[in-house]
Amino acid sequence: MYPLIFQSDFGMQDGAVSAMHGVAYNVSPELRMFDLTHEIQPYNIWEASYRLIQTVSYWPESAVFVSVVDPGVGSDRSSVVVKTRTGQYIVTPDNGTLTHIKRMLGIVSVRIIDESVNRLPGSEECYTFYGRDVYAYTGARLAAGIITYEEVGPEVSVDTVIELPVMVPEEGANEVNGTIDVLDIRFGSLWTNIPKEMFDALNIKRGDRAEITISNDIRTVYRNTMIFGNSFAEVSIGEPILYVNSLGCMAVAINQGSFARAYSVGTGNSWHIRIRKVPDMYLS
Amino acid sequence: MYPLIFQSDFGMQDGAVSAMHGVAYNVSPELRMFDLTHEIQPYNIWEASYRLIQTVSYWPESAVFVSVVDPGVGSDRSSVVVKTRTGQYIVTPDNGTLTHIKRMLGIVSVRIIDESVNRLPGSEECYTFYGRDVYAYTGARLAAGIITYEEVGPEVSVDTVIELPVMVPEEGANEVNGTIDVLDIRFGSLWTNIPKEMFDALNIKRGDRAEITISNDIRTVYRNTMIFGNSFAEVSIGEPILYVNSLGCMAVAINQGSFARAYSVGTGNSWHIRIRKVPDMYLS
Amino acid sequence: MYPLIFQSDFGMQDGAVSAMHGVAYNVSPELRMFDLTHEIQPYNIWEASYRLIQTVSYWPESAVFVSVVDPGVGSDRSSVVVKTRTGQYIVTPDNGTLTHIKRMLGIVSVRIIDESVNRLPGSEECYTFYGRDVYAYTGARLAAGIITYEEVGPEVSVDTVIELPVMVPEEGANEVNGTIDVLDIRFGSLWTNIPKEMFDALNIKRGDRAEITISNDIRTVYRNTMIFGNSFAEVSIGEPILYVNSLGCMAVAINQGSFARAYSVGTGNSWHIRIRKVPDMYLS
Repeated sequence: MYPLIFQSDFGMQDGAVSAMHGVAYNVSPELRMFDLTHEIQPYNIWEASYRLIQTVSYWPESAVFVSVVDPGVGSDRSSVVVKTRTGQYIVTPDNGTLTHIKRMLGIVSVRIIDESVNRLPGSEECYTFYGRDVYAYTGARLAAGIITYEEVGPEVSVDTVIELPVMVPEEGANEVNGTIDVLDIRFGSLWTNIPKEMFDALNIKRGDRAEITISNDIRTVYRNTMIFGNSFAEVSIGEPILYVNSLGCMAVAINQGSFARAYSVGTGNSWHIRIRKVPDMYLS
Repeated sequence: MYPLIFQSDFGMQDGAVSAMHGVAYNVSPELRMFDLTHEIQPYNIWEASYRLIQTVSYWPESAVFVSVVDPGVGSDRSSVVVKTRTGQYIVTPDNGTLTHIKRMLGIVSVRIIDESVNRLPGSEECYTFYGRDVYAYTGARLAAGIITYEEVGPEVSVDTVIELPVMVPEEGANEVNGTIDVLDIRFGSLWTNIPKEMFDALNIKRGDRAEITISNDIRTVYRNTMIFGNSFAEVSIGEPILYVNSLGCMAVAINQGSFARAYSVGTGNSWHIRIRKVPDMYLS
Repeated sequence: MYPLIFQSDFGMQDGAVSAMHGVAYNVSPELRMFDLTHEIQPYNIWEASYRLIQTVSYWPESAVFVSVVDPGVGSDRSSVVVKTRTGQYIVTPDNGTLTHIKRMLGIVSVRIIDESVNRLPGSEECYTFYGRDVYAYTGARLAAGIITYEEVGPEVSVDTVIELPVMVPEEGANEVNGTIDVLDIRFGSLWTNIPKEMFDALNIKRGDRAEITISNDIRTVYRNTMIFGNSFAEVSIGEPILYVNSLGCMAVAINQGSFARAYSVGTGNSWHIRIRKVPDMYLS
């Protein structure tokens, strides 16, 4: 019996999530169920992908995630279960939801769900709620040990797993360039795709200032220096700070304020960020 | 030990839901608790009724639902536990919350909660939180097997269960007429009260176009033809589609858009929808 | 094995809460986890304090609460576990989150978390997510019985627990004066800091009218009489009512309306409320 964790863009206002819980409960009353989030922006596959990489590795081996952000429901997009390098399973439409997991954590195996056996009996006439009829049902049976991973369906190459376009951060002379991947929504912090290791090459010490430039395509929306610190409390309330987020990537925030709202910063591949080491002479 | 599923209009911003969970936990630490939704619009009994019919049948026999949308708390509305035709129990104020369950799923028995025994000890002075003191407490004791259904209180006739006014869909010559019952909130789809079986009589095939007319009282807000399909992927992004929803009723959506927002469509008995078979000559 | 209840200002839109759940699950798969709320307004310590007092006593002895509203993360604010007079544990930054629990329920013991042993192994480099790395981890180990309360860290005096400024309600001639502590958010009711016992001294009977004056600093925003009743159903829809809330304090509401929105009433120490007994001659 392994934990079953749900994620979707269904919201919690209607009965869709509870129908999935009920289907899983009917598979096995012993199952332990959890909700990652159901507040993914509708159809936002990128966000679904990001929330998985933010979470999966905190759960044990054999934990089963069911992720349902499925704008192509009913199309020929395939439905898969993947096994991560760290042993968790993810049940999802193969539509880009696995982008970050594939690149950052690693996928060791992929199987196509064989719907002729892995579908809620009696649901064949319903074409719009795969989350309940296929994904929750299959995830629950896998988590409860009723089917093995092999019984999900035929294995295919990991190379076939669909990836959304991802920008790769780049090192330059005394600078690193990346994109704003996602917001820490409630606190308005910017989470970049620049890993701490790449930043470390700039040799900026804790307490030093770095110059941050943020641009949307070619329009600069922010350029200023800020302190690199471990945590918000190292700067004044209302002051910006550069720090390492809980995923090990560089992030920018305002202590007890919202950086995203202060400068109207968005996310995605058109939102660039540059971190530059400030020459000492500018700081005297 | 049966699952206990909560629904209310309390929201999740304060401690009300957790107080109900705590009361149930104190009844029995072994209880498995789930939340259907606590985001019912305040006082919206219709929505509470709809979310139950959307969910109840996905849970096993003897599952216990506690539904607390209770604008008349403290009035003489009675508090009941009903048993559905499929064996689940629902603990609720009898104020219309059982409308859809009674009509569509069926109620086989009703008992009035005897508050002289089925009330959280020590709560007699509190008149405003029946959800915690009576409904959660009684639901938990029923789900844990501490009381039997018979010990809830005296049985009364199923006929006494209060129903909100419900519009009945009607068949005409080459058309069916119904109302917009509810929205699939996050995706902006319109869910009607027209069952698939009634629609089938129009003999509209998958891939055919049907004419949809939506009006608010006597004002027409939409009239156009759209494809009848199994799922959104059968039309272009941004194109409307007529389909069968996960409850087996006819629904209207825009693929990856919001039909409700696009045409400012609301819900309730004043929102009419007509589905008409389009004569072949108009489609050449 | 005791229940573990989480509260935070993280929201449910991202993966932060699920990362905490996962850390706790890894501590012990048997743990029963619940969520009080994660919708505390960001950085609002007062609200976190209030939601605890609203909830804690409905859970059994030895229940463990993890409350993470932590604007000073990374500062020298200490991290503590307290034991309440009724036997529950609360794991939290000591930043005022315990204000109401200390004053109204009582704290019998405080221990500083020794992070050299009570920290998720491998998390030493992360300075921004104490909720996951210290509080969830320590709360889970305490709830699962892996560490005893004594093993949390060194005990300190209860006097050291930080309290936010709290206004004390006052009795006058034929009146009581207090503040608006918090809103019952979804229903727009005002919850005051005036306990029922103090109000009782005014000898206002159920069904009598009382004069309510609400002011923000020196500006009066409301003054009128309203009925004192047990529950909303005792007044007409749309009529205001004075009642005793589920915490045993005086509250003001509009039956099926929002008092807070109707008169733009806020919360905090600058929002005063006076309840006055109305001389009989004014009521004839």
